[in-house]
Amino acid sequence: MLHPCFANARLYIYTTFMQEKEGFIMNKKQSNVIILGSTGSIGIQALDVIRMHSDSFRVLGLAAKDEVQLLREQIELYQPEYISLADKESIKKLGELGGSGVKKALPGVEGLCELASLPEADIVLVALSGAIGILPTLAAIEARKRVALANKETLVAAGDIVMQEARQQGALIIPVDSEHSAIFQCLAGEARHLHRIWLTASGGPFRDFTREQMKAVDLEMALQHPNWSMGPKITIDSATLMNKGLEVIEAHHLFGVGYNEIEVLLQAESIIHSMVELQDGAFLAHLGRPDMRIPIQYALTYPERMESPVERLDFRTLGAIHFGRPDTQAFPALALAYEAGKAGGTMPAVLNAANEVAVNSFMQRRIDFARIPLLVERVMEMHDMVKQPDLDSILAADAWARVRCEELI
Amino acid sequence: MLHPCFANARLYIYTTFMQEKEGFIMNKKQSNVIILGSTGSIGIQALDVIRMHSDSFRVLGLAAKDEVQLLREQIELYQPEYISLADKESIKKLGELGGSGVKKALPGVEGLCELASLPEADIVLVALSGAIGILPTLAAIEARKRVALANKETLVAAGDIVMQEARQQGALIIPVDSEHSAIFQCLAGEARHLHRIWLTASGGPFRDFTREQMKAVDLEMALQHPNWSMGPKITIDSATLMNKGLEVIEAHHLFGVGYNEIEVLLQAESIIHSMVELQDGAFLAHLGRPDMRIPIQYALTYPERMESPVERLDFRTLGAIHFGRPDTQAFPALALAYEAGKAGGTMPAVLNAANEVAVNSFMQRRIDFARIPLLVERVMEMHDMVKQPDLDSILAADAWARVRCEELI
Repeated sequence: MLHPCFANARLYIYTTFMQEKEGFIMNKKQSNVIILGSTGSIGIQALDVIRMHSDSFRVLGLAAKDEVQLLREQIELYQPEYISLADKESIKKLGELGGSGVKKALPGVEGLCELASLPEADIVLVALSGAIGILPTLAAIEARKRVALANKETLVAAGDIVMQEARQQGALIIPVDSEHSAIFQCLAGEARHLHRIWLTASGGPFRDFTREQMKAVDLEMALQHPNWSMGPKITIDSATLMNKGLEVIEAHHLFGVGYNEIEVLLQAESIIHSMVELQDGAFLAHLGRPDMRIPIQYALTYPERMESPVERLDFRTLGAIHFGRPDTQAFPALALAYEAGKAGGTMPAVLNAANEVAVNSFMQRRIDFARIPLLVERVMEMHDMVKQPDLDSILAADAWARVRCEELI
Repeated sequence: MLHPCFANARLYIYTTFMQEKEGFIMNKKQSNVIILGSTGSIGIQALDVIRMHSDSFRVLGLAAKDEVQLLREQIELYQPEYISLADKESIKKLGELGGSGVKKALPGVEGLCELASLPEADIVLVALSGAIGILPTLAAIEARKRVALANKETLVAAGDIVMQEARQQGALIIPVDSEHSAIFQCLAGEARHLHRIWLTASGGPFRDFTREQMKAVDLEMALQHPNWSMGPKITIDSATLMNKGLEVIEAHHLFGVGYNEIEVLLQAESIIHSMVELQDGAFLAHLGRPDMRIPIQYALTYPERMESPVERLDFRTLGAIHFGRPDTQAFPALALAYEAGKAGGTMPAVLNAANEVAVNSFMQRRIDFARIPLLVERVMEMHDMVKQPDLDSILAADAWARVRCEELI
């Protein structure tokens, strides 16, 4: 079975070949980096990586929502020329904190898009949470930036449009999600031999819970991920397995692979970050410590690698790692995501938007944990799907699903 | 830390790039295959693979030692034009078995070399056991064949000479050993980022034995490998861990990596076939069923892959896999191999020759299991090492070590 080659792999092979041939090493000069979502978990870890490699990377722009105090500290340390905040009020607050070399402060989604397409920018790290990432990602692609994509909701909601634009522009999208970074690395040169993708999942904090135990889950329990240090939204999504479902849809778009060729494998310790199974029965896997700084750094340095701030892993002292099958009965969100992905059109955008609202309500203690997938399912059932949506239809479906989900709560 | 690039990886990248560019698929025509050692475990499994892909591969020549009956059956099935046996007497015996379309039957090492350099041959699978592989491997390289190398003793004894010749001729050596095949696949495009190679080892049947228990080991116990189906010599070598030691030296030559950057990792179930650790702390690994037909087939089809006769592995039902540190106290052979490798010159040839004789004596029940590494150590101690040996010095050291080891028994 031959699969459609994935554009990035070809580019990778070409670049690597040219580098080997020319003895050329990328990033000899400093690359200018824009971080959209600099006060979130990925953003903070990305700044960590950049600090370690300040010869190679320089912060050109930072964008946050309303975490004015933290952004203020980041500005002090990294001296970006451009910043963006969700609204003018936050920008005003930032100004009141005094002293800054910022050239320009831009509000809202327009601000995000302007940062993403700055002429001096080389790499745009999209580390926003939720579907708000769609427009800035498209802006970065249109400006032919390297997009380090940590925002899976963008591909879930608008994957067809985003990937088509990337192909047309010849823009490079490097996934930051540890699973997709792993697959990206394993697929290089092997895309045409792909049999199946194995997305690994830790199973989250409730992996071994019965349905009965699940009923007692509260916010504090759901915010404790056993392996990964991540933001609150993705941590809740990991607890419902919706995160893995969104990743299945993300993988479908990134690697051009059908849903029947993407499987989820429980790997409790998150040591194997994902695998590709090839035509001849061989598996290639990417392993290491569950530390997001490794895939974040890879997205910045690709196709090179650099020393990382993460302590090396010694497998000799690791003991054992465990595998299993995800329980789709106890975790209906995973099945819902497959369903939405296979349906296509506006359905994944609706899945994602309803999930964002439901997770938000759970974080505000307005609903129980078990209701999250039920709400998503109900909104999906109510949705009148558009089969080949343009961007407006997707944004409309997203908005519709948010209102509908709120009404149901 | 940047490592010397490995020639094969560069060639791989180039080939893959050209194929992606040209849409060219190798092996559209039938490749002519020579199997040196067709009646051994690797040879038999290679014929299995070829039978499954008879559109792509054709057996041109088969060589065995003296297993006349089995060779007769293989001739019937695969109709090679050329065969080789260890001596004229065996060839005579084969003739007495009657009827064959064989064009030419050649005796001895000269016969092996002639087969390895036949003008019509495309791929030479060197699946001989022991240092007898050196000259035929060199013959295949000089004739610029693709060498599928299953004979690690050749690289252990004469690695510098063989690899230099391969570089000069531009001949491609594809390792068949599962570990080196794994590393070869993981290194493609990443050789310049290599931090360390992790050779995995099952630990053999006596992994958890105390030194006391080791004293009671007999031949039948040593011939039971927990995971892999292999020939008797390599199975005994796996039980002493000498096999892993030889593989360390093999990896040093194949991938141009120093001994301090090659580590051995116990992986009890042989599911991870080896790993490379990269500069940034990421590990790339090759996993799958412990079935030699997968790496054998890869060496034939590279850089393509084909469906394999091996049943697919489902990680979801695998349970757990275990890691550990090899016990160099209980298994002194591993340390001896590192020592011989680091000493260089004729020392690895002496290690290997003494080991061949010692293992042979053990299989003839002339010595105890525990004496195998002691004999090897003693012969190494007695050896007057040549630092930069030519092929004659290596063969002389090999012969010297065999005589000396026999004398000690």
